[in-house]
Amino acid sequence: MSEAFPDIPKIQFEGPKSKNPLSFKQYNADEVVAGKTMRDHFRFGVAYWHAMRNTLSDPFGGGTSQKPWDDGTESVDNARRRAHVCFEFMDKLGIDYYCFHDRDIAPEGASLKESHANLDAVVDELEGLQKATGKKLLWGTASLFGNARYNQGAATSPSAAVFAYAGAQVKKALEVTHRLGGEGYTFWGGREGYASLWNTDMKREVDHLAAFLHMAVAHKKKIGFTGQFYIEPKPREPSTHQYDSDSAACLNFLRQYDLLEHFKLNIETNHATLAGHTMRHELEVALAAGALGSIDANTGDELIGWDTDQFPTDIYLTTQIMLVLLKMGGFTTGGLNFDAKVRRESFEPVDLFHAHIGGMDAFARGLKIASAIIEDGRLDGFVKQRYSSFDSGIGAQIEKGEVGFEELEAYSFANGEPVIGSGRQEMLEGLVNEFI
Amino acid sequence: MSEAFPDIPKIQFEGPKSKNPLSFKQYNADEVVAGKTMRDHFRFGVAYWHAMRNTLSDPFGGGTSQKPWDDGTESVDNARRRAHVCFEFMDKLGIDYYCFHDRDIAPEGASLKESHANLDAVVDELEGLQKATGKKLLWGTASLFGNARYNQGAATSPSAAVFAYAGAQVKKALEVTHRLGGEGYTFWGGREGYASLWNTDMKREVDHLAAFLHMAVAHKKKIGFTGQFYIEPKPREPSTHQYDSDSAACLNFLRQYDLLEHFKLNIETNHATLAGHTMRHELEVALAAGALGSIDANTGDELIGWDTDQFPTDIYLTTQIMLVLLKMGGFTTGGLNFDAKVRRESFEPVDLFHAHIGGMDAFARGLKIASAIIEDGRLDGFVKQRYSSFDSGIGAQIEKGEVGFEELEAYSFANGEPVIGSGRQEMLEGLVNEFI
Amino acid sequence: MSEAFPDIPKIQFEGPKSKNPLSFKQYNADEVVAGKTMRDHFRFGVAYWHAMRNTLSDPFGGGTSQKPWDDGTESVDNARRRAHVCFEFMDKLGIDYYCFHDRDIAPEGASLKESHANLDAVVDELEGLQKATGKKLLWGTASLFGNARYNQGAATSPSAAVFAYAGAQVKKALEVTHRLGGEGYTFWGGREGYASLWNTDMKREVDHLAAFLHMAVAHKKKIGFTGQFYIEPKPREPSTHQYDSDSAACLNFLRQYDLLEHFKLNIETNHATLAGHTMRHELEVALAAGALGSIDANTGDELIGWDTDQFPTDIYLTTQIMLVLLKMGGFTTGGLNFDAKVRRESFEPVDLFHAHIGGMDAFARGLKIASAIIEDGRLDGFVKQRYSSFDSGIGAQIEKGEVGFEELEAYSFANGEPVIGSGRQEMLEGLVNEFI
Amino acid sequence: MSEAFPDIPKIQFEGPKSKNPLSFKQYNADEVVAGKTMRDHFRFGVAYWHAMRNTLSDPFGGGTSQKPWDDGTESVDNARRRAHVCFEFMDKLGIDYYCFHDRDIAPEGASLKESHANLDAVVDELEGLQKATGKKLLWGTASLFGNARYNQGAATSPSAAVFAYAGAQVKKALEVTHRLGGEGYTFWGGREGYASLWNTDMKREVDHLAAFLHMAVAHKKKIGFTGQFYIEPKPREPSTHQYDSDSAACLNFLRQYDLLEHFKLNIETNHATLAGHTMRHELEVALAAGALGSIDANTGDELIGWDTDQFPTDIYLTTQIMLVLLKMGGFTTGGLNFDAKVRRESFEPVDLFHAHIGGMDAFARGLKIASAIIEDGRLDGFVKQRYSSFDSGIGAQIEKGEVGFEELEAYSFANGEPVIGSGRQEMLEGLVNEFI
Repeated sequence: MSEAFPDIPKIQFEGPKSKNPLSFKQYNADEVVAGKTMRDHFRFGVAYWHAMRNTLSDPFGGGTSQKPWDDGTESVDNARRRAHVCFEFMDKLGIDYYCFHDRDIAPEGASLKESHANLDAVVDELEGLQKATGKKLLWGTASLFGNARYNQGAATSPSAAVFAYAGAQVKKALEVTHRLGGEGYTFWGGREGYASLWNTDMKREVDHLAAFLHMAVAHKKKIGFTGQFYIEPKPREPSTHQYDSDSAACLNFLRQYDLLEHFKLNIETNHATLAGHTMRHELEVALAAGALGSIDANTGDELIGWDTDQFPTDIYLTTQIMLVLLKMGGFTTGGLNFDAKVRRESFEPVDLFHAHIGGMDAFARGLKIASAIIEDGRLDGFVKQRYSSFDSGIGAQIEKGEVGFEELEAYSFANGEPVIGSGRQEMLEGLVNEFI
Repeated sequence: MSEAFPDIPKIQFEGPKSKNPLSFKQYNADEVVAGKTMRDHFRFGVAYWHAMRNTLSDPFGGGTSQKPWDDGTESVDNARRRAHVCFEFMDKLGIDYYCFHDRDIAPEGASLKESHANLDAVVDELEGLQKATGKKLLWGTASLFGNARYNQGAATSPSAAVFAYAGAQVKKALEVTHRLGGEGYTFWGGREGYASLWNTDMKREVDHLAAFLHMAVAHKKKIGFTGQFYIEPKPREPSTHQYDSDSAACLNFLRQYDLLEHFKLNIETNHATLAGHTMRHELEVALAAGALGSIDANTGDELIGWDTDQFPTDIYLTTQIMLVLLKMGGFTTGGLNFDAKVRRESFEPVDLFHAHIGGMDAFARGLKIASAIIEDGRLDGFVKQRYSSFDSGIGAQIEKGEVGFEELEAYSFANGEPVIGSGRQEMLEGLVNEFI
Repeated sequence: MSEAFPDIPKIQFEGPKSKNPLSFKQYNADEVVAGKTMRDHFRFGVAYWHAMRNTLSDPFGGGTSQKPWDDGTESVDNARRRAHVCFEFMDKLGIDYYCFHDRDIAPEGASLKESHANLDAVVDELEGLQKATGKKLLWGTASLFGNARYNQGAATSPSAAVFAYAGAQVKKALEVTHRLGGEGYTFWGGREGYASLWNTDMKREVDHLAAFLHMAVAHKKKIGFTGQFYIEPKPREPSTHQYDSDSAACLNFLRQYDLLEHFKLNIETNHATLAGHTMRHELEVALAAGALGSIDANTGDELIGWDTDQFPTDIYLTTQIMLVLLKMGGFTTGGLNFDAKVRRESFEPVDLFHAHIGGMDAFARGLKIASAIIEDGRLDGFVKQRYSSFDSGIGAQIEKGEVGFEELEAYSFANGEPVIGSGRQEMLEGLVNEFI
Repeated sequence: MSEAFPDIPKIQFEGPKSKNPLSFKQYNADEVVAGKTMRDHFRFGVAYWHAMRNTLSDPFGGGTSQKPWDDGTESVDNARRRAHVCFEFMDKLGIDYYCFHDRDIAPEGASLKESHANLDAVVDELEGLQKATGKKLLWGTASLFGNARYNQGAATSPSAAVFAYAGAQVKKALEVTHRLGGEGYTFWGGREGYASLWNTDMKREVDHLAAFLHMAVAHKKKIGFTGQFYIEPKPREPSTHQYDSDSAACLNFLRQYDLLEHFKLNIETNHATLAGHTMRHELEVALAAGALGSIDANTGDELIGWDTDQFPTDIYLTTQIMLVLLKMGGFTTGGLNFDAKVRRESFEPVDLFHAHIGGMDAFARGLKIASAIIEDGRLDGFVKQRYSSFDSGIGAQIEKGEVGFEELEAYSFANGEPVIGSGRQEMLEGLVNEFI
């Protein structure tokens, strides 16, 4: 098979002074930062749906994306060809992982059986490509949102038959993910919510969602799949309101239905901001619950109310993400999956390279900055000092549960008005800028 | 003591044709709707802070509110006078309940002891007024946000001394709430969040918040207070991000720290919409968790990003609230507390009456409409029918946990493409309009 | 040709007690309200793109809409068939007008000439249908956003060839609108904005937009088209930022480029709220400038950041729209075009009827309420009284331009602190509820 | 008079490696960048209201700010002392300009005459300080929003007496600004909008606003003041909707009422984002109209719906601002006024220094980056090339007005489908990151 990107060579690290747009200026895969290579810190993934399948249509216009390798058919042959293109793309970018939905990699057939068969055929090809190249599957998933049957939900559909169909589809997607050695499996319930509460029984729907996930846990065990399960929060779009609206909503659901031990979260920047949180907030919430699993690396435009899925290039954002990741000790099964699409106006194949290079360089900058901030120590030192009154005395007693309101009242009677220092937010923002 | 509102008589129900703005056109306290009097459905409460204390200042200008009865001093005498005004106000509106923060009813003193003493003095007065009038305390609370000491949080302050002070204050507030026969006690943590993550240890702060609430539970038990504890979600303002950001975040927190059995939620419309949810969504989430306790009746402007705390007059909103309440079977300890303020431009005493009358009439309309919709049965019937595939067959097996993915796959192989009916949102919106 | 909606009869007015969902409960075409029939007040229009062409796909899933009459081809024959369906639909709903984009009614051909020819062929059909039924074209327009060539704008494209192509397309669309007796022509520049300022020369693009509209004015004159030109404001989507972002931005542009005499505004609820305004605000701004032309009747969800284009059913909204329209004295060339789509979950043909019936009934309610409020007189009376200090004395002198700052200072020295009355917002909201 | 900041020395430029938080790491006043000293590029101003008067109260709590020099009285003596503190502050930061509202610098008296006299007394002091130090007034203004009399507007108040009072106040503010050699005068109409359209006559209010500004223009001429007039857009807060909602709304208003020649815009980041625009958008809109006058340097939090007025520290933001300023050729009368406040948690005097240092360093970075991007030329080159089809041929004819729709149609028939290149947004974002 001929190359899909014949004019584009392997992207090389050329350093910050290079003016070659098709080079890395910051990302140097084997450079060691904070004790690990960049490659191992990031575990970058290509999102098959955006890189290989997104036509760049939008609600007001058709696709613009130029994919000369794609004959436009929904055939298995075309799907196999795309698999080769994706691996060439990963190879040229030096990206080790990819992620997919079942329907990204293989066409939906006229029946469920045919869909399964199509999937098997393409997975054969992917398996071969993985073996030949050493590339790996970061996580797999099933599209339970694209087909019209899921218009009112999959696991939360009012139709039991649709629930069953979704189960059958996830069963197969789990199996092929397992077969491809996927390190995880993600549940994003784009239609698991509602368009209107006038026609919705929320309690019954959420009960169904929990039942569905328990079935997934059981099937995972049955087939011996040991990858990590992730839930991906998002508040809305396509639904008016998705049940997994943010980290806290997901954690609440997982706790309520005894699922927390089986799931971690896959956090996405644009989903965080659509929910009214910063990415850093969502990461910290997940981390505090021991449930930060993987990251969908993208960004949104905070003035825009839908999921723009832009490539992340803001150094402040990548710095904050890397600070949380370094605090966690890095990924285990997770990685940074570029769930991002080029703009509809950036329709040429080379734009996919520009976009990924920009994102990878931005994360490399973020890592180096985060590492320098930690090494410098002033920021962490300030925070530790800020809470130091809880390290001894009445504070330590509070943390140990040794005192109650009566003791606190006695303490306050005795000690008078508390004195508290400035939060120094402006000084700290200036401090961070020293490293940007 | 002379009347505060000498020109305003007791507000009477005069029916929908009255053109007297100082009459109820819809709210008829003793009229029975859906098996209960309106009075018992709503359990309306006056919010002491807004009705008696709000000067109507805003970030760009000083107070405008005219309160001829208030001499402007932070004295106990002035506070006692206000108590009488509040009871006159409740009496003239026919409202049975009120809610307060400790610092609303009595001035903060030069020391904690003095603050306690001030509180006791005014509570004596309130106790007398309650006995004389039969009015009751819906819930009490402590202001852990107004004083400068709480600028970085109370239970989540980085200062252990501030935590202790907050504990002492809540201890006392619980005690006076108990003494006044309060039916509940609300925790709203306006400063329990962060201004910036750069200086914040989120995990440690949230641990402290849980410790604080466990102390409250212990003290409640110790003093024999049997009222209901409520947590009130709000995403932000005054904080950049409050930990109790919405119903799901509160429930997640309560589950994580084994507090769920001790708390219900007090849901407010404007907080719901600031969090990106509808009021109805937040109520349904709380109800589904068995944790819907009380309601702060107000509304916001969805195009405005701060807490406008307007009086609720939208009939669609009150209808939706009453539908959820009727589904729940009505309040037990909770009620509809008017956590709403007149606009800064509505600064005359009579505006307080216009505002409460408008809110009470809007809820009376909402109740009558909700009751009619339920009696009509078409809406509920549609929803029940929509999920009926789960009442038997594979759906019932799914709900009973009798099947897994393998059975679902077999079912789907056998049954082919699922058929699903229209969600009929537009028809249902038209149906609801028949009752508005 | 057989009927497209064989099971649906002509929708009749059956009054508010009817439980037949396929009847009007409020809209009674020939009923006279405020001196005119409902039909003449509203001048309802069907939006061809939503009613006939919307597949109900969204960014996460394919179409769901069931259109048994449509063979799915992009053929002229299919297009002709759709024209018949649209007229049957209008007939059964009793709607007199329709609106279209060129590409809604006829397929784009392999060349511009072929596209023109396709358009002519379908316009022949429409002309015949109009003559046979008496239905009329409210306004026409050209789709300058759907085709990939317009991905970076049409009149504001960086490519002069694209600008030229857009001009050729609008030329033809104007001509067929003229031929069909269209009462107006609308310019909505969905792509006339930018995705990023990094690659944009805003000044040059806006200059081009003005040049384009001047050409349109010239061509209108040349062909003798006397319909009204409209510009339709919208802040974003599909663009990151559209130049015609709201009423004020449109008016500023029209004034700057000497176009104001040639254009009025076509205001849409969902566009207003996306821009951070209420519909009423946008209508008032347009009215105050003498530039309120027509209305796209729909609604959005204020918690959602994209254009949901829902059918309008909120009685408060329709009341406010009708109050402004009655103040203006009603439409001249404009009308209420239902630029609204059924939800993706409401995919059956009958849902199109439910949706339009709901919208028409909601406007009928709004008209009756608005008319009653005006007849009652209390609301208008309050507002007139509120500004009455400008009707005489210093106020009248101010309005006449007879005084300057020196006279105002002298007046203020002499008169001391001004006294101002309450704005009474809460009382007025209660007053309005008397009529809902 | 003793120093207000005795422990804080003059802030020196110590370069990027300094770890002294009370030093400039980037801002070097006399360093020449792009042909001018940094001092002359920025023309930084201190906002008297935030730096000297903000108590850091918020809607939920009282002030926290520590101002040991301020005795808390509303006396002229205290006001004089503050003036000295402000000049010490400017001196230690090396800031050359300040901005004020009349009521910031001097207390409002019991009558308008007394207020005038208070103002005169403090202006005497300021005049002396200016002479002694060489510091200058960037612009003055009058507070037409703080006093309760303005609760329903000043120039747009429904009361003619309030309009008159506002006129008298602006008259005096203009005169003292003139006396102090102010380089400009700003109109920010915080209350010039509405709380509710139910009680508002928008057209009459906007007419009054125009009349007011014409009076200001006349008085300016009469007293010989030659400073620049600015209007400052903001969409809301404190009002529900302010008439001057964004740049386009201001320009539309100025054009409609023949005021454009007399006014430029003073653009503020946080106001831009509250209006749904980026700061860069608002600057470009103003620049394209020849109306970019001055800048209020701050930033907001895009996830927060109110005016947070934070100090600007985002390098992307300062780079974009400086790119526009360099394109304009720099300020004439305007400057970068820090309309920003320290967080309520940053209440110590030294926080004012941290905050301004952070902002000044961020702008210094922005200037250096913007200058480097321009010098590099690749970005501008890309943009020029992108529009190059308008530099000759049909494009040039379009720009010259030599062709109409008929010629465009002929061109398109002849030339077929236009070809357009990628917008390359991702490549450009990566390119910009090379300079950050």
